[in-house]
Amino acid sequence: MPQLAISFADVLAAADRLHGVARRTPVLTCDALDERTGAQVFFKAENLQRVGAFKFRGAYNALSRLTPQQREHGVIAFSSGNHAQAVALAARLLNMPAVLVMPHDAPAIKLAATREHLRGLRGSEIVLYDRYTEDRAAIGARLAAERGLTSIPPFDHPDVMAGQGTAALEMIEQAGPLDALLVCVGGGGLISGCAVAATHLLPEIAVHGVEPEAGNDTQRSLKAGHIVQIGVPQTIADGAQTTSSGLLTFPVIQALVRSVVTVTDAQLVRTMQHLAQHLKLVVEPTGCLAAAALLEGVLDLRGQRVGVILSGGNVDLIQYSQFLSGTGGSATLPDPHGGALGALIKDAP
Amino acid sequence: MPQLAISFADVLAAADRLHGVARRTPVLTCDALDERTGAQVFFKAENLQRVGAFKFRGAYNALSRLTPQQREHGVIAFSSGNHAQAVALAARLLNMPAVLVMPHDAPAIKLAATREHLRGLRGSEIVLYDRYTEDRAAIGARLAAERGLTSIPPFDHPDVMAGQGTAALEMIEQAGPLDALLVCVGGGGLISGCAVAATHLLPEIAVHGVEPEAGNDTQRSLKAGHIVQIGVPQTIADGAQTTSSGLLTFPVIQALVRSVVTVTDAQLVRTMQHLAQHLKLVVEPTGCLAAAALLEGVLDLRGQRVGVILSGGNVDLIQYSQFLSGTGGSATLPDPHGGALGALIKDAP
Repeated sequence: MPQLAISFADVLAAADRLHGVARRTPVLTCDALDERTGAQVFFKAENLQRVGAFKFRGAYNALSRLTPQQREHGVIAFSSGNHAQAVALAARLLNMPAVLVMPHDAPAIKLAATREHLRGLRGSEIVLYDRYTEDRAAIGARLAAERGLTSIPPFDHPDVMAGQGTAALEMIEQAGPLDALLVCVGGGGLISGCAVAATHLLPEIAVHGVEPEAGNDTQRSLKAGHIVQIGVPQTIADGAQTTSSGLLTFPVIQALVRSVVTVTDAQLVRTMQHLAQHLKLVVEPTGCLAAAALLEGVLDLRGQRVGVILSGGNVDLIQYSQFLSGTGGSATLPDPHGGALGALIKDAP
Repeated sequence: MPQLAISFADVLAAADRLHGVARRTPVLTCDALDERTGAQVFFKAENLQRVGAFKFRGAYNALSRLTPQQREHGVIAFSSGNHAQAVALAARLLNMPAVLVMPHDAPAIKLAATREHLRGLRGSEIVLYDRYTEDRAAIGARLAAERGLTSIPPFDHPDVMAGQGTAALEMIEQAGPLDALLVCVGGGGLISGCAVAATHLLPEIAVHGVEPEAGNDTQRSLKAGHIVQIGVPQTIADGAQTTSSGLLTFPVIQALVRSVVTVTDAQLVRTMQHLAQHLKLVVEPTGCLAAAALLEGVLDLRGQRVGVILSGGNVDLIQYSQFLSGTGGSATLPDPHGGALGALIKDAP
């Protein structure tokens, strides 16, 4: 087996750094959903994490590992989504400058939340760019060079991966032994960290990844035996609109993940409804991926103790209300590629 | 001071009975809501309690106190709301017959959930009545007499009150000392139990009750010095559509509650939106009462450590989606007395 980018010790060290900073999010159970699936299901509510998503774990862990000189200059990140908010809050807590390069048409609510975290933080700003006419990589490279900023990627970084892995570490402490663990897959930061933690603690556990059907690059990569790149997938799971796994995350997925399955947008919408009705939780489309695979019967894990990570809850309320009022079939779904939902479709985080 | 119906010892005993049966629901905090209110706010998420509301605490405590003979015959309760589900689940767990007398036009989702809890439970049934033409008291009296059933009232009962008080007991264990505690008020079961627990543990704490503006019977009763009866209030807070406090709960409120304030339906809707956006929680209108008083500035508790009980999360998803998509002003509210929302208006629980 090739040397993987992180080990269990890295996850443990991340947990130490996050202690008292990240929330120890609750694990919830629900008789109705157990009955529906025939399994004993434990939901890790990372939608209740700071900034509303697991992303805070990786961002804070990465920023807290920087040298004093790096902290002095600050960090830069590209994201229209939860990673931006996570880096902004982590920078604030660690008192270092942060530059967030975000598309000018990012959801207003995420721009506002990111701006709020950066308020009054020395040397910090949001740099908006036009994703249709400008090259964000060039913008970022120029800024990083000019200001000596350290780039914090959203998933393909050992400290980010180790930080995300603390979600699984905590969950197993809270729920006890699990037969299976279901995790959403975008770039693979969350699932790679979680797979390292879970398979170390429970060597027999089956870790399954779940992708949107339209964005099954990791599933295809596993089949091909190498990283497959796809176009930006059209799905309401905006946090999983990545075009490929990472160079560091993919080998971990290859080594430690049992399977990657896919779910449709219609299945995500029904799952959003189930989680609101039965768990009383607001979960964003991407956050429903893992749960959907189980609740919609894509994976049959009858009789097993199953951990499910609900990865985030950041969704525009108007869009969310449209998802809840749909009757669940794709025919009644709001058009995911137009109208009010257009704002959900954004570049890969 | 007159002898109150319950003491702190009763709440402690209830906590023992509920240990490992009721959920120890999480207490959540949120920087954005702290900033909005100027207070340090601790939200007790009883919407994550079994059956989706605090009502399970009181119902289970009351049923577990019955004699073997009473258990053999079973219990009867009248409710179209959360109390019905709570009694049904408690009866199932304690294996005793339960008869729930519910209006034929109760929300389908609550009928279904109650029926599910009773499935296969000996001697159990839902008795539907027409609230416009039939007298539920007479129906209940006849059934109770015929079958020797013990009636479990929704709030005016010492064991119910003591059970509800465990919510405050837990919260103070979880959050530490509080300067103030905000609790919704319907018949007064939750606030009376919580006031007994909180003022025993923290003699200086200010316990505030919150009622819907249209249903301010307790506020008026406190002013009058005796229980005032009102007509069924028209409010989206269906769990607080009570017409008066109880004979047992009112003296506790008189003795231990600092003030009772009111909020409007429009304020409840905006609070539902805030709690979805910032806490990622689905909270029903009644469950938003206490939070609304703080978030809408009815109570100014700047600089204080404030506990807020989010009492429940059982709301029809279609109605909930309408609340979320409103812009918050009363002008844009769906008509609470007609259309799809008509089903929310029901008899007192």
